[in-house]
Amino acid sequence: MTYSVKFLPYNVSIDAEDNESLIRAAMEAGVHINASCGGSGVCGKCRVLIEEGNVEGGISEHLSPEDREKGYRLACLSKIASDIAVRIPVESQIDTTRLNAQTGGRHTAKAVYSDVDELRQDGLFIPPVEKIYLELDPAVAGDNQADVTRIINHLRLNHDEHRLTMDLNLIRKIPDIIRKGDFKVTATIVRPVRKDGKNKIVNIEPFDTSERNFAIAVDIGTTTVYGQTLDLQTGEVLSQHGEFNSQISYGEDVISRIVFSEKDGGLEIIHQKVIETLNKIIDRILKKAEIARHEVTTITLAGNSTMTQLLLKINPSYIRRDPYVPASIMYPPFHANEIGIDLADHSIALIYPGVSSYVGGDIIAGVMASGMYRTNELTLYMDIGTNAEIVIGHKDWMVCTAASAGPAFEGGGVKFGMRAGKGAIEDFSIDPETYEPMIITVGNKKAKGICGSGLITLAAKLLETGIIDSRGKFNRSLETPRVRKTDDIWEYVLVYKENTQIDRDITITEPDLDNLIRAKGAMYSAALTLLEEIGLKVNDIERVILAGGFGSYVDLQSAITIGLLPEIEPEKVTYLGNGSLLGCKINSLTNALRRDVANVVNMMTNFELASTPSYMDHYMGALFLPHTEMNYFPKVKKRLELLHR
Amino acid sequence: MTYSVKFLPYNVSIDAEDNESLIRAAMEAGVHINASCGGSGVCGKCRVLIEEGNVEGGISEHLSPEDREKGYRLACLSKIASDIAVRIPVESQIDTTRLNAQTGGRHTAKAVYSDVDELRQDGLFIPPVEKIYLELDPAVAGDNQADVTRIINHLRLNHDEHRLTMDLNLIRKIPDIIRKGDFKVTATIVRPVRKDGKNKIVNIEPFDTSERNFAIAVDIGTTTVYGQTLDLQTGEVLSQHGEFNSQISYGEDVISRIVFSEKDGGLEIIHQKVIETLNKIIDRILKKAEIARHEVTTITLAGNSTMTQLLLKINPSYIRRDPYVPASIMYPPFHANEIGIDLADHSIALIYPGVSSYVGGDIIAGVMASGMYRTNELTLYMDIGTNAEIVIGHKDWMVCTAASAGPAFEGGGVKFGMRAGKGAIEDFSIDPETYEPMIITVGNKKAKGICGSGLITLAAKLLETGIIDSRGKFNRSLETPRVRKTDDIWEYVLVYKENTQIDRDITITEPDLDNLIRAKGAMYSAALTLLEEIGLKVNDIERVILAGGFGSYVDLQSAITIGLLPEIEPEKVTYLGNGSLLGCKINSLTNALRRDVANVVNMMTNFELASTPSYMDHYMGALFLPHTEMNYFPKVKKRLELLHR
Repeated sequence: MTYSVKFLPYNVSIDAEDNESLIRAAMEAGVHINASCGGSGVCGKCRVLIEEGNVEGGISEHLSPEDREKGYRLACLSKIASDIAVRIPVESQIDTTRLNAQTGGRHTAKAVYSDVDELRQDGLFIPPVEKIYLELDPAVAGDNQADVTRIINHLRLNHDEHRLTMDLNLIRKIPDIIRKGDFKVTATIVRPVRKDGKNKIVNIEPFDTSERNFAIAVDIGTTTVYGQTLDLQTGEVLSQHGEFNSQISYGEDVISRIVFSEKDGGLEIIHQKVIETLNKIIDRILKKAEIARHEVTTITLAGNSTMTQLLLKINPSYIRRDPYVPASIMYPPFHANEIGIDLADHSIALIYPGVSSYVGGDIIAGVMASGMYRTNELTLYMDIGTNAEIVIGHKDWMVCTAASAGPAFEGGGVKFGMRAGKGAIEDFSIDPETYEPMIITVGNKKAKGICGSGLITLAAKLLETGIIDSRGKFNRSLETPRVRKTDDIWEYVLVYKENTQIDRDITITEPDLDNLIRAKGAMYSAALTLLEEIGLKVNDIERVILAGGFGSYVDLQSAITIGLLPEIEPEKVTYLGNGSLLGCKINSLTNALRRDVANVVNMMTNFELASTPSYMDHYMGALFLPHTEMNYFPKVKKRLELLHR
Repeated sequence: MTYSVKFLPYNVSIDAEDNESLIRAAMEAGVHINASCGGSGVCGKCRVLIEEGNVEGGISEHLSPEDREKGYRLACLSKIASDIAVRIPVESQIDTTRLNAQTGGRHTAKAVYSDVDELRQDGLFIPPVEKIYLELDPAVAGDNQADVTRIINHLRLNHDEHRLTMDLNLIRKIPDIIRKGDFKVTATIVRPVRKDGKNKIVNIEPFDTSERNFAIAVDIGTTTVYGQTLDLQTGEVLSQHGEFNSQISYGEDVISRIVFSEKDGGLEIIHQKVIETLNKIIDRILKKAEIARHEVTTITLAGNSTMTQLLLKINPSYIRRDPYVPASIMYPPFHANEIGIDLADHSIALIYPGVSSYVGGDIIAGVMASGMYRTNELTLYMDIGTNAEIVIGHKDWMVCTAASAGPAFEGGGVKFGMRAGKGAIEDFSIDPETYEPMIITVGNKKAKGICGSGLITLAAKLLETGIIDSRGKFNRSLETPRVRKTDDIWEYVLVYKENTQIDRDITITEPDLDNLIRAKGAMYSAALTLLEEIGLKVNDIERVILAGGFGSYVDLQSAITIGLLPEIEPEKVTYLGNGSLLGCKINSLTNALRRDVANVVNMMTNFELASTPSYMDHYMGALFLPHTEMNYFPKVKKRLELLHR
């Protein structure tokens, strides 16, 4: 159920879901309401007057009985329960020019959605591993062909299956299985990548088990490992679960993991750690979905090149050493239990290929999941994180690169930075007159810190309101106690300690902003460098795809305002979420994709920024908000001019 | 050096090698000299008179000084040292008719010889596993492709190698190896059977090791396992060794081995036994040839279907049970150490495919080694042993079958039967007047028993001299103490106990002859049945190939006389020796053969004699010497008529 919510005096309307909190609806609409505590009802600042319609809740000790009677409510505690009109108490009349220069509220990217039905319609819902039930003719005098021959001939004659092969281990089991099933058996067949490859029979089970065919998709993240089970009959996700990658105890980032792996026995230890995590997840998701281990026929895994090599126990040393060489970009299918994955003998592991040491299988998985390799639109694919990976191209060509963005996007190098957990400031606005903030936290808990997407919005709003300049430096002459100098460092107070969970003022400092600028500068200049290398301009980009954990939360206009994303209509930006996991899922469902993956990897040209001299120039130019070259951002330029008049 | 030897009074001449013993030359020439002790100088019967030329030795206490002075020598101790004329003392003048009916001496089959040079000339000396030395460009900034990609691209661009693949285990080792070799490495590549298959890189070694590429060929016999090392640069056999298959302690024949394997844990035990034997042989031949384990890139193995399944640890139960179904006829290449063969990770095992439960890889190996699959001549391939395998055909078609011949050919079921070791009676002739024997043993030792080829000659000579009739029964009315009845069993005394190693009279008995007749009857009737099934007659056969241990020793005329071989000119008969080992050797040297093998296996039609009603009729007819249908043996018939006048 959707209701119309009108904000007065701005006369801005928005559609909001039944039961949504009023303060989130205001943030969506781009309407500022002072709110210091994150939306938990503690600070009592977000008083609004309900003029028409009803809300549920919104009552607080911060409101006197008279105020309540008049219709005042706390916006953060009010749930929308009908069409309403709500008036925001404002200290001054809003300048209409400025109002027009507002970004019109929050825009997040729409999800790209890959539908199983679509695959089915296109005749592509043929998983890499299929099960086929066979009713064989029993062996008798006059027809005593070998058991294996009997199976292969039956598949040839009755199922048009050719180029069949099987391993010794399976052949060993066949004589007994075929008789246990009284010559009724189910064959599990792994499809080749290329049509002229071999179809490998990896299992023969007695009787008809063809209805029970499941896959597992796994994203091996440096921080988190996610797995899900898939029903290969229906394409449905049956269960999923994530766990921290337990390698974390040997280092937060890939470089420190590699360093650990170089110690005596380190590779074995750190390899075992991720296998442990993986087996824990597999155990959980199989139990949840009531799937037996032997019913899993494939597991597709994707990770960055370091995670992939550690998973496969391949020395990753040369990834971190000039000239940054991975062991391989493609890996052959293998039996999952060969590397210690707790699945049956016949479960086949498929590893997403990567392109280079810093553009790995996780990125290729995302590119595949996004479908960008099939479109004509010039697409910019960005995986925002400590290591920023960028792919540009479309169906005819693709280029990619990786930049070290630093940890700012993940809350690192930021004084009150944190991951996007409960209490993280995820949305933010500033009253342009009073410089008072409006803060919304994850879970509407008292504030605890600032997450990556919050940081981007913060920086954009500070810039728009002139609290910071284009170099990220605070305006030293503003008359507000929120901008201050502590221990020689300038900062803006987001939440005073009484409204926090941590009993300290939560601030954003100039060094925080420096780190953010470097991070966004690295990403943007990487994209710019890539474009330049292939003779294109930033405004040739027709589509942007965001991957990575916080892609779905980023306010697109803010990301453009600070120069993280190129200036593009928000509708042209989509997000994938966990592209790596999504790519693994699609790989499990359609074998056609595996051919495409090989083609994409072969067509993709990798640029090493370190060997691309123009990168440093582009990087220096990008260390401004949004950029020294304001012509890249004509609309932002115009808007900031209006706002800063 | 060859000398001419003329035997008087027969006026028969023969060319003999320098240093050959005179008694063997006589046997070759078909000249009878009484000799009871096997050729060891003990009985002193083989007195001959040297009339022209010289011999070395031949002096014995059995000869008086006067005799020596006259020129008498013992034939068995005389070595030919010049052209000579030698007179055999005879008790009576030889009937010339009979002389003409003689077989003209001993005829053994000529060896089929597969020459490496021939392969080389035909451009076929391309082993299934090759080593290629690569001088890679070192990784530098601007060329930092993945290590695996670098290797594959180099092979593509500089060696025209395509469709390359490798396993995870190898990928694991590459980053360190490539740098250890300073980007100079040697790749080991396994060729596919079909041209459109994948070339699998199985090893990468630092620096140039391409000169050290060795293969092992192994025949896994039920009784004996033979192995040899091959230099894949030159095609040379460097060392070889045989050992009894230590499975023998669990049964002499395949059926008793299968029965043992069906016991709890039996399969594992009996599998381990043959692996032990194999590893012992490998150890020996590698040491002899000074080859390190990691320098062996392939091992090709062939055995009958039971030996193959036990080697691979595949339950062989259904081989011995109606309808006699093997697990598989073809096996994929695998890493030799997967089944416990003590070779390096990258050594690839290739298993010879078979056709059915009783026509196994050993036979196919022999067929391949014999080259019969390439000729236009209708060829009969016979592997003579306890299990007799028969293949008939040529390049356009082939049929095969197996018959249980019983153990007579291997010395079993024969009172004084033994394998062809020292002291085994291997050659034999009888004086048609006196019925005194001429005996030659293996190694010229005092007689110990009768080997398979000796038994065939014995039976033929007994038949020719009328000592036995065509049913294998002794002529009860002969006036010689050598034919006698002991414990109600008729027998012929070959060697009296004083001239034996065993201090017992060595005889051949009627039951021995019965067993031999059954064995040769099974073989011949199997061939006849096969021919009849495909609408051909026995005289359509243009060529006979004998495989198996004693093929090289069998006197062809004797084998024809008793009806083991069809009547064919001796020049049309060749022997392979250990066809299984020879097939493995050729397989190691030329990959082209592997395609041919697959084609031969696919083209070959297997007949089960048990399901072929005419077999029993043919078998009954073959239980005579040579056969009830004497028209199959017109020349033998004529000869016997002459001899028995």
